[in-house]
Amino acid sequence: MSLETVAGEALIQQNLERFLLVLTVSLSVATLPQIFSWVRQIPYTLLLVIVGLALAFVDVRLVNLSPELILSIFLPPLLFEAAWNLRWPDLKRDLFPVVLYAIVGVVISVLGIAFALNQWAAIPLTTALLLGASLSATDPVSVIALFRELGVDKRLSTLMEGESLFNDGVAVVAFSLLVGLALGTDDFELRRTVAEFVGFVGIGVGVGSLIGFGISFLTQRFDLPLVEQSLTLVSAYGTYLITEELGGSGVIGVVMAGMILGNFGSRIGMNPRTRLIVTEFWEFLAFFVNSIVFLLIGDQIQFASLGNNLDTIAITIAAVAVTRAVSIYLLGGFSNWVVESNINWQERTVLWWGGLRGSVSIALALSVPIILDAREEIIATVFGVVLFTLLVQGLTTKPLLKALNLLGEQSQKQQYLEAIARRIALTRVLERLEEEKRRPDIDPEYYRYQKSLVEGQIKELEREIEELRSQEPDLQEFVREKFREELLAIEADTYAEFVRSGRLNRELAPFLQDVIQEEKT
Amino acid sequence: MSLETVAGEALIQQNLERFLLVLTVSLSVATLPQIFSWVRQIPYTLLLVIVGLALAFVDVRLVNLSPELILSIFLPPLLFEAAWNLRWPDLKRDLFPVVLYAIVGVVISVLGIAFALNQWAAIPLTTALLLGASLSATDPVSVIALFRELGVDKRLSTLMEGESLFNDGVAVVAFSLLVGLALGTDDFELRRTVAEFVGFVGIGVGVGSLIGFGISFLTQRFDLPLVEQSLTLVSAYGTYLITEELGGSGVIGVVMAGMILGNFGSRIGMNPRTRLIVTEFWEFLAFFVNSIVFLLIGDQIQFASLGNNLDTIAITIAAVAVTRAVSIYLLGGFSNWVVESNINWQERTVLWWGGLRGSVSIALALSVPIILDAREEIIATVFGVVLFTLLVQGLTTKPLLKALNLLGEQSQKQQYLEAIARRIALTRVLERLEEEKRRPDIDPEYYRYQKSLVEGQIKELEREIEELRSQEPDLQEFVREKFREELLAIEADTYAEFVRSGRLNRELAPFLQDVIQEEKT
Repeated sequence: MSLETVAGEALIQQNLERFLLVLTVSLSVATLPQIFSWVRQIPYTLLLVIVGLALAFVDVRLVNLSPELILSIFLPPLLFEAAWNLRWPDLKRDLFPVVLYAIVGVVISVLGIAFALNQWAAIPLTTALLLGASLSATDPVSVIALFRELGVDKRLSTLMEGESLFNDGVAVVAFSLLVGLALGTDDFELRRTVAEFVGFVGIGVGVGSLIGFGISFLTQRFDLPLVEQSLTLVSAYGTYLITEELGGSGVIGVVMAGMILGNFGSRIGMNPRTRLIVTEFWEFLAFFVNSIVFLLIGDQIQFASLGNNLDTIAITIAAVAVTRAVSIYLLGGFSNWVVESNINWQERTVLWWGGLRGSVSIALALSVPIILDAREEIIATVFGVVLFTLLVQGLTTKPLLKALNLLGEQSQKQQYLEAIARRIALTRVLERLEEEKRRPDIDPEYYRYQKSLVEGQIKELEREIEELRSQEPDLQEFVREKFREELLAIEADTYAEFVRSGRLNRELAPFLQDVIQEEKT
Repeated sequence: MSLETVAGEALIQQNLERFLLVLTVSLSVATLPQIFSWVRQIPYTLLLVIVGLALAFVDVRLVNLSPELILSIFLPPLLFEAAWNLRWPDLKRDLFPVVLYAIVGVVISVLGIAFALNQWAAIPLTTALLLGASLSATDPVSVIALFRELGVDKRLSTLMEGESLFNDGVAVVAFSLLVGLALGTDDFELRRTVAEFVGFVGIGVGVGSLIGFGISFLTQRFDLPLVEQSLTLVSAYGTYLITEELGGSGVIGVVMAGMILGNFGSRIGMNPRTRLIVTEFWEFLAFFVNSIVFLLIGDQIQFASLGNNLDTIAITIAAVAVTRAVSIYLLGGFSNWVVESNINWQERTVLWWGGLRGSVSIALALSVPIILDAREEIIATVFGVVLFTLLVQGLTTKPLLKALNLLGEQSQKQQYLEAIARRIALTRVLERLEEEKRRPDIDPEYYRYQKSLVEGQIKELEREIEELRSQEPDLQEFVREKFREELLAIEADTYAEFVRSGRLNRELAPFLQDVIQEEKT
């Protein structure tokens, strides 16, 4: 090859090679549970952190994790995927507590952590505030990965995911304001700060909505699956970059765009098959990025640096836990009182303990300006706290869920739902077999064989369903609710189909929704 | 954000922004046929080249296309996807002519083009040889994109795709050897050259096979769809990099790995649903990369430079066409004589005229060392020839196929499947007519008329089906397999639907799959 390009090629190859190496390690980790059954207790993401730590321990450093890598490359797709899958009706039901946690919760957290560090670790207030802001973002990536893997109850997931998706934006904004303060370029003035905050968030919401709805209406005008799939990718990165360039919160922009495309655009603009393919594509992308991020989090740990800051880390861990307890229990109670959100103490306990910190906190800490003396200390402390929440809290969340009886019940419901899904699937297969009976091109013997197989399986499933139902009488009500949701989805999808095909000009509010709402209240 | 990271972040953001811009332009181009119906005549990839040219004309340059970008980033996924979808039984049937074209064809092309340029354009032999080598790779990307879009007969596709996938590797190897010669560091010695060639190809085949079979057997040991999907991506880039590092042909390595995984690994190691998702993922990735590559090819054109080299370009175009005619017609005849491959003159004509040059030729030209004086001339000439083949040959290939009667003829299986699909569709229409009979708002006369129409059509279809079946007895087994696949798809789709709508948290493995697997063994 040419001499001039050798340098460029070497650089690209080196980076590519390193990421391939990271992926290879991560994918090997993913197969561990297949080999050692006891590993199955540990969620994939946490397993990656542990392996990363082990590599860091023998001083094998794979790739340097920089804030720009986290913020511009990894975060947009992860946020988009989470927002794409967040069902708006679920979120709407709990919008009040979610917003409360995301805004007031962050304020409590920043101030509380800063106060504790200033008081008991003798850390200057500006540094303490920066630490507080970095650690106020419960990382959506870690939390969502954990909750999905544990199969947590849907409502709890919505609360946690919603909070994580939104408090991120708030924490990033708070952090930026505080950096200005620490550098001495700004001085604190409440009115201006609030105005800036509203600007950040407003631009994020504005750009995100514009892109979300714009692409939704655009995709409605044509049916080109690959183009629509590409557009979701373009909108994830594009929204982030445009919002940041305009001085808004990229995180909030991506979340808005993702939610709009996932809940609205994918219904009016995509045919069901495209929607499925796009969802699968994002699931893969999220898995892919997570495989890189969590391994690198573990792999970045500087043990010496952690050791030097052990006191500060311990105090910070305590402060993080206490402030989160305060905000979750207090704000939860407040929300229960105002809108009857009924977040019981078991759920609050999980929300408290499951509030992991992750890549966003690390990105913020790494982006502390080098001219600030406290930078090393901040980075070490944040890494320490993140590691604690991921490993200690992360690994004990499942037992906690079990102890609080939030998982056991779920699994029976899950089992029941699975059995039902299987029965429906096999019934459809049977129907198809009946329907095609008249097809002269396949011989009847083959039909009979297939049919008897499927019928046997269905009978077995019915026995299982009966058994489960007799064991738990609640299942009836649970299934009824599910069924109502289904009917609603059919109705909404039909309207969406009409709108998409141009036979209707505007979305109708599903009629059943009001009925259900009435029934419930 | 921090000061130290501003530079890094700006760089990443800038690159990201440029690629997002490229994508946005490409996706807009993809929607053009929806707006202007006459555009539908032009394949997407060629439309991109035209739009890129238009942008270059007003001097809007999007991203600088460098050889390392093409070779390390774009080519591996495109080659992998093409190889993944190449069916081994089809290729095996035509392996002799494919290998003949890929090896002997390249030799004829390099020498022929070099001779013509040396003779009639007074270009020094070393430069002429470099030009010959750059232009001897029929670009798999362009050719495959074109043939797929045109829906060319499968055998013709296999011949062309197979040749393109393999002659690439050969041309790259020839080019590397010739660069050494041009720089004066090597002198030509036939025995050493042949040994080097065998080494290049051998390492490629070896590494590609090793990785392909290794991952095939690995994925057989577990059922983790996302991991398996990631592994295909890792193997595409990994094979390329490792092979190149070991001094082999990365192109050949990727093609080997892709073919093994697509034909063997995906069958023994993946469940049908995973295989489908992976295939869809690669289809998307290829679309995505093509959207970038073809736009940039057009956008890179330097009109002034082309103008200065018009004579050379014209002579090269003629030389390329003539040498390809010689190799296709002669070698085709030879192959027909030796293994009775029955490549008729119509097919040979398409193989000749459809042999487009594309990104590989450009990558090779761009990688000519700057210390060679002729670099600018080589680049301009290659761009000129690539543009000619893409636009003139590319746009006239479809009319040519029509004129040669190669587009109308469809495989019998395809015809059979279509007849069956039509019959099922019409049967459903009939059922609906029966069902709606009771609707009082449509008069019975109209029903009877419609019904008799549909019934007539069904009868005709049945006759056609009967006829096809008597012509080809294989169809029975073929249809049975299709039917099994259908049943499996119904089951898998139902589960996917449940997961998507949130009624199930995790994917279920289809029950029928095991049944079918057992049946087969």
